[in-house]
Amino acid sequence: MTPAYQLFNLGSNNQLAQEISTILGKPLSPIDVKTFADNEIYERIENTVRGRDVYVIQGISDPVNENFMRLMIFIDAARRASANSINVVIPYFGYARADRKARSREPISARLIADMLESQGVKRVMTMDLHADQVQGFFDIPVDHLIAMPALGHYFYENNLLGDDLVVVAPGHTSVARARKFAKLLHAEWAIVDHRLDKNTNEFSYQITGNVAGKRAILVDDIIDTGASMVQSSKALNAAGVDVIYAVATHAVLSNKASQLLDQSHIKQVIVTNTIEVPAKKEFSKLIKLSVAAPFAEALKRVDAFESIQDVLKSQDNMDVTL
Amino acid sequence: MTPAYQLFNLGSNNQLAQEISTILGKPLSPIDVKTFADNEIYERIENTVRGRDVYVIQGISDPVNENFMRLMIFIDAARRASANSINVVIPYFGYARADRKARSREPISARLIADMLESQGVKRVMTMDLHADQVQGFFDIPVDHLIAMPALGHYFYENNLLGDDLVVVAPGHTSVARARKFAKLLHAEWAIVDHRLDKNTNEFSYQITGNVAGKRAILVDDIIDTGASMVQSSKALNAAGVDVIYAVATHAVLSNKASQLLDQSHIKQVIVTNTIEVPAKKEFSKLIKLSVAAPFAEALKRVDAFESIQDVLKSQDNMDVTL
Amino acid sequence: MTPAYQLFNLGSNNQLAQEISTILGKPLSPIDVKTFADNEIYERIENTVRGRDVYVIQGISDPVNENFMRLMIFIDAARRASANSINVVIPYFGYARADRKARSREPISARLIADMLESQGVKRVMTMDLHADQVQGFFDIPVDHLIAMPALGHYFYENNLLGDDLVVVAPGHTSVARARKFAKLLHAEWAIVDHRLDKNTNEFSYQITGNVAGKRAILVDDIIDTGASMVQSSKALNAAGVDVIYAVATHAVLSNKASQLLDQSHIKQVIVTNTIEVPAKKEFSKLIKLSVAAPFAEALKRVDAFESIQDVLKSQDNMDVTL
Amino acid sequence: MTPAYQLFNLGSNNQLAQEISTILGKPLSPIDVKTFADNEIYERIENTVRGRDVYVIQGISDPVNENFMRLMIFIDAARRASANSINVVIPYFGYARADRKARSREPISARLIADMLESQGVKRVMTMDLHADQVQGFFDIPVDHLIAMPALGHYFYENNLLGDDLVVVAPGHTSVARARKFAKLLHAEWAIVDHRLDKNTNEFSYQITGNVAGKRAILVDDIIDTGASMVQSSKALNAAGVDVIYAVATHAVLSNKASQLLDQSHIKQVIVTNTIEVPAKKEFSKLIKLSVAAPFAEALKRVDAFESIQDVLKSQDNMDVTL
Amino acid sequence: MTPAYQLFNLGSNNQLAQEISTILGKPLSPIDVKTFADNEIYERIENTVRGRDVYVIQGISDPVNENFMRLMIFIDAARRASANSINVVIPYFGYARADRKARSREPISARLIADMLESQGVKRVMTMDLHADQVQGFFDIPVDHLIAMPALGHYFYENNLLGDDLVVVAPGHTSVARARKFAKLLHAEWAIVDHRLDKNTNEFSYQITGNVAGKRAILVDDIIDTGASMVQSSKALNAAGVDVIYAVATHAVLSNKASQLLDQSHIKQVIVTNTIEVPAKKEFSKLIKLSVAAPFAEALKRVDAFESIQDVLKSQDNMDVTL
Amino acid sequence: MTPAYQLFNLGSNNQLAQEISTILGKPLSPIDVKTFADNEIYERIENTVRGRDVYVIQGISDPVNENFMRLMIFIDAARRASANSINVVIPYFGYARADRKARSREPISARLIADMLESQGVKRVMTMDLHADQVQGFFDIPVDHLIAMPALGHYFYENNLLGDDLVVVAPGHTSVARARKFAKLLHAEWAIVDHRLDKNTNEFSYQITGNVAGKRAILVDDIIDTGASMVQSSKALNAAGVDVIYAVATHAVLSNKASQLLDQSHIKQVIVTNTIEVPAKKEFSKLIKLSVAAPFAEALKRVDAFESIQDVLKSQDNMDVTL
Repeated sequence: MTPAYQLFNLGSNNQLAQEISTILGKPLSPIDVKTFADNEIYERIENTVRGRDVYVIQGISDPVNENFMRLMIFIDAARRASANSINVVIPYFGYARADRKARSREPISARLIADMLESQGVKRVMTMDLHADQVQGFFDIPVDHLIAMPALGHYFYENNLLGDDLVVVAPGHTSVARARKFAKLLHAEWAIVDHRLDKNTNEFSYQITGNVAGKRAILVDDIIDTGASMVQSSKALNAAGVDVIYAVATHAVLSNKASQLLDQSHIKQVIVTNTIEVPAKKEFSKLIKLSVAAPFAEALKRVDAFESIQDVLKSQDNMDVTL
Repeated sequence: MTPAYQLFNLGSNNQLAQEISTILGKPLSPIDVKTFADNEIYERIENTVRGRDVYVIQGISDPVNENFMRLMIFIDAARRASANSINVVIPYFGYARADRKARSREPISARLIADMLESQGVKRVMTMDLHADQVQGFFDIPVDHLIAMPALGHYFYENNLLGDDLVVVAPGHTSVARARKFAKLLHAEWAIVDHRLDKNTNEFSYQITGNVAGKRAILVDDIIDTGASMVQSSKALNAAGVDVIYAVATHAVLSNKASQLLDQSHIKQVIVTNTIEVPAKKEFSKLIKLSVAAPFAEALKRVDAFESIQDVLKSQDNMDVTL
Repeated sequence: MTPAYQLFNLGSNNQLAQEISTILGKPLSPIDVKTFADNEIYERIENTVRGRDVYVIQGISDPVNENFMRLMIFIDAARRASANSINVVIPYFGYARADRKARSREPISARLIADMLESQGVKRVMTMDLHADQVQGFFDIPVDHLIAMPALGHYFYENNLLGDDLVVVAPGHTSVARARKFAKLLHAEWAIVDHRLDKNTNEFSYQITGNVAGKRAILVDDIIDTGASMVQSSKALNAAGVDVIYAVATHAVLSNKASQLLDQSHIKQVIVTNTIEVPAKKEFSKLIKLSVAAPFAEALKRVDAFESIQDVLKSQDNMDVTL
Repeated sequence: MTPAYQLFNLGSNNQLAQEISTILGKPLSPIDVKTFADNEIYERIENTVRGRDVYVIQGISDPVNENFMRLMIFIDAARRASANSINVVIPYFGYARADRKARSREPISARLIADMLESQGVKRVMTMDLHADQVQGFFDIPVDHLIAMPALGHYFYENNLLGDDLVVVAPGHTSVARARKFAKLLHAEWAIVDHRLDKNTNEFSYQITGNVAGKRAILVDDIIDTGASMVQSSKALNAAGVDVIYAVATHAVLSNKASQLLDQSHIKQVIVTNTIEVPAKKEFSKLIKLSVAAPFAEALKRVDAFESIQDVLKSQDNMDVTL
Repeated sequence: MTPAYQLFNLGSNNQLAQEISTILGKPLSPIDVKTFADNEIYERIENTVRGRDVYVIQGISDPVNENFMRLMIFIDAARRASANSINVVIPYFGYARADRKARSREPISARLIADMLESQGVKRVMTMDLHADQVQGFFDIPVDHLIAMPALGHYFYENNLLGDDLVVVAPGHTSVARARKFAKLLHAEWAIVDHRLDKNTNEFSYQITGNVAGKRAILVDDIIDTGASMVQSSKALNAAGVDVIYAVATHAVLSNKASQLLDQSHIKQVIVTNTIEVPAKKEFSKLIKLSVAAPFAEALKRVDAFESIQDVLKSQDNMDVTL
Repeated sequence: MTPAYQLFNLGSNNQLAQEISTILGKPLSPIDVKTFADNEIYERIENTVRGRDVYVIQGISDPVNENFMRLMIFIDAARRASANSINVVIPYFGYARADRKARSREPISARLIADMLESQGVKRVMTMDLHADQVQGFFDIPVDHLIAMPALGHYFYENNLLGDDLVVVAPGHTSVARARKFAKLLHAEWAIVDHRLDKNTNEFSYQITGNVAGKRAILVDDIIDTGASMVQSSKALNAAGVDVIYAVATHAVLSNKASQLLDQSHIKQVIVTNTIEVPAKKEFSKLIKLSVAAPFAEALKRVDAFESIQDVLKSQDNMDVTL
């Protein structure tokens, strides 16, 4: 009989990994991960994984290349050590935005990441809110694609923030589908803040399509990277008569001075999940972090028990989260 | 020295293939394609292809499965006959809309198509206006991705249809990026017709975001399939005070009663390209068909000459067609 | 522990699939298979298949390309849905006759079919009476190759049609091995009807090798396609003094006017199996259809139980069916 | 520009390799092939093969496993040495008879051989008279399949052995297709010697189907292995009133006492080709060896020049050798 | 539930296979292995292996190519017969010394062997004392790499041969790592016998680095092939004042006149394991053969039980056998 | 005709790349490489590479994971941009020391690196002085393995440092083969400094095997990482009566305080090559850096011209550098 599965954490997000472990009642298996003097990564799995299903938690977040290579080296070690299957849990799938050739002679790095994982015999990828749903198709192996929307929607529900004066706003045309879906979940209208480069001034002008004046606005995106798009959109909304603005996103990349910019903006609250571990120096008072350990743990438990994960994709508030 | 390349046509779109052949001054190589009594496909390449680069034109248009299998069987024959390389020119890439799992346990058929082509040693895919740019990443081989926008934009340019009263309209939220880009090309504003299902009446209600009243509207999409989305959007536009409506799309699938619906609608002209051959019974007076043989021929010539195809992606009217 | 296997039917042969399901006491798992307006196929597996061994019944019979693509799309969906293994049951393996290059620059479509199946991770093929045994070697995965001869032989046994006056006749030189084996099973002699093209008249002349005069003849082949070979051979036999003629084959393709030709011929009975579903309009009174649901069900049961299928290949009448 | 191709010989058939080299005017490139004390094979290619198309001649004849491993090791060396392509010329394809599972749990060794060759990046196989045409389909790479029939037929033509009293005889049912084709080439009739095991005496009884009495008979097969089938068939023919018997085959395996048995039989001449080198101790006076160096050299020249090899498959005597 | 595993022996080392079988209490599964008259190998697995984990014991020892092909053909048969997994136990991994290109245009035959095994779906390799540890990296599948050092060290321990006057000597610079490790195990010093070609005399001169005079020396290597290196080193040691010399090696290849040379040398005892079966004619009185059936059996048992094999790599004498 | 090749540099060693470019008279092709705010790498090849052979120079030196990912992303971009072939020039192959499992459940990262490169279609690797020659066998594609020994030996030759009092010393048993070869090149003797852990003091004791007293010693290794092994060995040599000590190595990793340690040691000169770019802060006065741009440029030129690189592996001083 196949022995029980084992859970590993490679350190990209220790807090989330620990939470998942706790919910599952399954300790993180010990692994010796270190960096040599020349910065090569060394790993050694401490206990036998023969015939075990291995689940390893490692986001491809900053430092993205280090974190990705840690994952690849783990996979090599686990395969050679006769693991029965290697399942990678990637809370934040870095490089996912490099999902197409926008110009000639660019790479499609998201596919490259997928290829490298598959080439080493990974059996399954579990991740959350890929930048585009099509990235699932970069894999030929199963992708268990979780969504943060139930958790994000629940925040507004449990804090009594719903109401007829809510409008969900896409901070750019690429976020329309996401905004529209979140609006539907919250029974709200939706709008867009679009930007256009003025070739004379070489500055962006922001233009709102839809009715926002006098409403409370929720800016929705999948990633907050430098924060520019959220902050600029909030300026435009404020100028258009919006006082209360929330910014909602799954992945808190928070590059450069993102935290500072957001903190000083018109945005009242920045609601994100913990798919990426926010370091202390990037914390700021407006930042609300919701844990997605529960859906990851539940999905993992169901995958191990050969059960459907469909229910994990549903809202706990009877809100409609149709994909 | 490698002998000159050979051009084949498998019959999904004889007219386009013939035009490409004529522009290139390269005759279509003879091939015996037939269907046995039991409907199995038989093919035999009539002249030697040893060491030749082979380019085969075959869209995955209706009958999609027949047309795709014709292509696969050709590839098998050409590979066994020692072709130097097999380059497939797919003017319309069927199944491209099945590019993600919208629900659990669905296939990603677009990736399946890509896998089957790659598994048989295809070296390159040349296609036009994939439903989502990410489908490029379903391939690990080079994809030469052409665009119809220069030809479509040129139609408005050469017919003096440009002007300040033009608005480009997305007939649904998934077409926003395309509409926005076309608007930029024509120096126009853009708007959206969104739809929502009313659960009481079980009917869709259409809602316009953006200013359209009194303007001339261009509905833009990549595909016209059943025509429903174009026709419903035109109704909504008309109700909102738009008199002159154009419908623009790259791929004229025209399923079911699409032609009839479009012909009877408020739409003045339906402008499409010839990536798909429109059969006589689907012709209607409002239908304007623009040929994309020129960009395909030019791209093919450049690929064969090891030249960049970047210029093929540009507008001939000095309009800005940034990808 | 691995959950119980699941059985699917994609519709090429509903009757056979239902019979297999009934014998196994295993219901057909629900699947939503439909064709969009543009004739692209859509499938969705309705219940979870996580960790399940999946068996899917789908013959590659007319419409061959549709039926094959249905199978490929199912495989993609099942793999992405984390099926433990995908086992395809192909009662009739279309394209099997395209198993070699008879002329330069022809495809070997049977290998292409095998390659496409393997490329998507199929674990096992179960099929019956491949046109040539060598097609097993087109696969690197296990092929469970069932035979119809026990069922076909049993028909003559249970209807008391055996006797010293029986001769088994190959309707062409490519059927000699099959006829010889069937003759051995029925303790009969064997003969050949060979044909040769007369270049003057451009007609085939038929020539019998072996003793047939005054005997009852059984023409044996693997496939009845247009029926021409069976009907022409029966003419030749009749001219050589044979009154009672049976035609026996595993796969009833019955293309074009096959049914009509056979019905009007000297053949008394046409005995086939139900590997292909004969539509009502192709039925005719001489047609005897024997079910092979039992060997398929038994083989499937044994495969699932990790037992040898060797006994499934034996005759139930203690007749010797050496492969 | 790609440098000229290089021709190698690994020693399975030095004479044939030398003849091919001479006809082509292309010397055999030097290679150091030796066997270490422990019987491991060592090879070193002496001159650079960078960017060269490499053609290597090596039959899989006795010692089959040694000869095959010599070929595999050569391929590894040539690939690592940056050969542009590796083309293997296998005059006799050993293990080709293991082309299907005749019983459960047997290997299909011919496919295994094909897989191992493909797995190391071989680009093309050139061979002659595979036991079954379907073995071509065991490869996904091009197979240039030459035939000996033009040379074998020519022997009868140039020695004035044709005539109305000739009958071509298959020494078993598996040779019927070959005999029939040879008969057509020589404008002769054909017949079969079939054998059946008598379970009482445990001996084979031989039975002739077709008219042979008083004629001159040509027994035709692809391989003469132990010679049993040829010798037994000649006995049966002689008993049936045939005085003059020729035995014709492509591949002279001549295992065990084959030479002695054939020499002492009723067979007048044994006509074979030199695909396999017959060692001195297996020579016997009735053995006629025809060289197939010419078609191999011609095919190789055409492949290198990107020309069709179709004409190489034709008879030089205007005899019809339709495949 | 997966049925119990099955153990096969292909005959390269019947004695070792039988010992392993006895220790495990698991009979060797019957298999029909034979050689046809033309020296092609035939195999048939006699009992079903459906769903079974298959372990097959076959060393790549002389006749190396025959033994390797037997293994490949078995793998093909087992895979087609639906084995759940194929695990190959290779006590002596022939060709392992061909592990790098020492000169241009040489093969790396050890990698070729690894590739061929992997290409046919082998799941695991179990072997002992590879010539270089890096050969593990020629595989992407798990390699369970056993070591003979515990058994070899134990011999000296149980025969009270340890002591301060022991020195472990590498018979060449490539054996330094091995000698050093063995020295550590026996708490001894180590030394090297190096050789250099004198270009004038074209003879090797042997030079000892380290203190050996008056000590008992143990020459240690992984393989004894022709014995030259051991015998020449023993001469040099003897000339340097060493009277008592042991030669220790894992693999007793014993090519050419190795046995005779060793028997007539200054070496007192030649201690080897039974990874290779020494034929009677190569036996000599100084030869001590230690069985490694126990570690192979123990490792196999643990692999089947999903347990770590780490303890199998330890000395039973509390000696330190750090890899 | 294939256009001329293109040379790229990804920035791991700008100086070496520039030197190679200058020698070849081939400018480095422009490429836009940048790091986004979130530390994801972005690359865009600026000029067309269609049909070009692409050579890209990128060592896997510190930051190893960044540098490796830059290389992978470049490969993806070049392949999608229709490069004819992608040839990677890796002056220093990081992770090469992780070439075997020294303990259970370790990775073999060097093979992982090789696998990832091959999986993306790299055609050739050119590198220098791999830690173990066997790493060549981790690739199935051609590896052009250059050696630094001609350059390193030349330094002693041109500076008149040769002489009878020279001894080449391996700073550990794993460097014996390298030291022995260098000794042969310089017509010198060789010796070893071995170390052993004293379990009581937990310190290493160093022991010299061979005659060194009163000689000038050259410590030879492939890599100087932390410098510990060189510095400790120099202490042991000094204690054993060696005054003049040179340290020679191909790859100057110089981790941690290596430069400082070496500068303060008994070593007179540290002679390395420029396979790794030594940053200013790691420079120290004893450091002699020899350029290997010449052999890389010459090898690259020959590879492009389909010529053997054998001569590049020879010493320019008529010294014998047998591999």
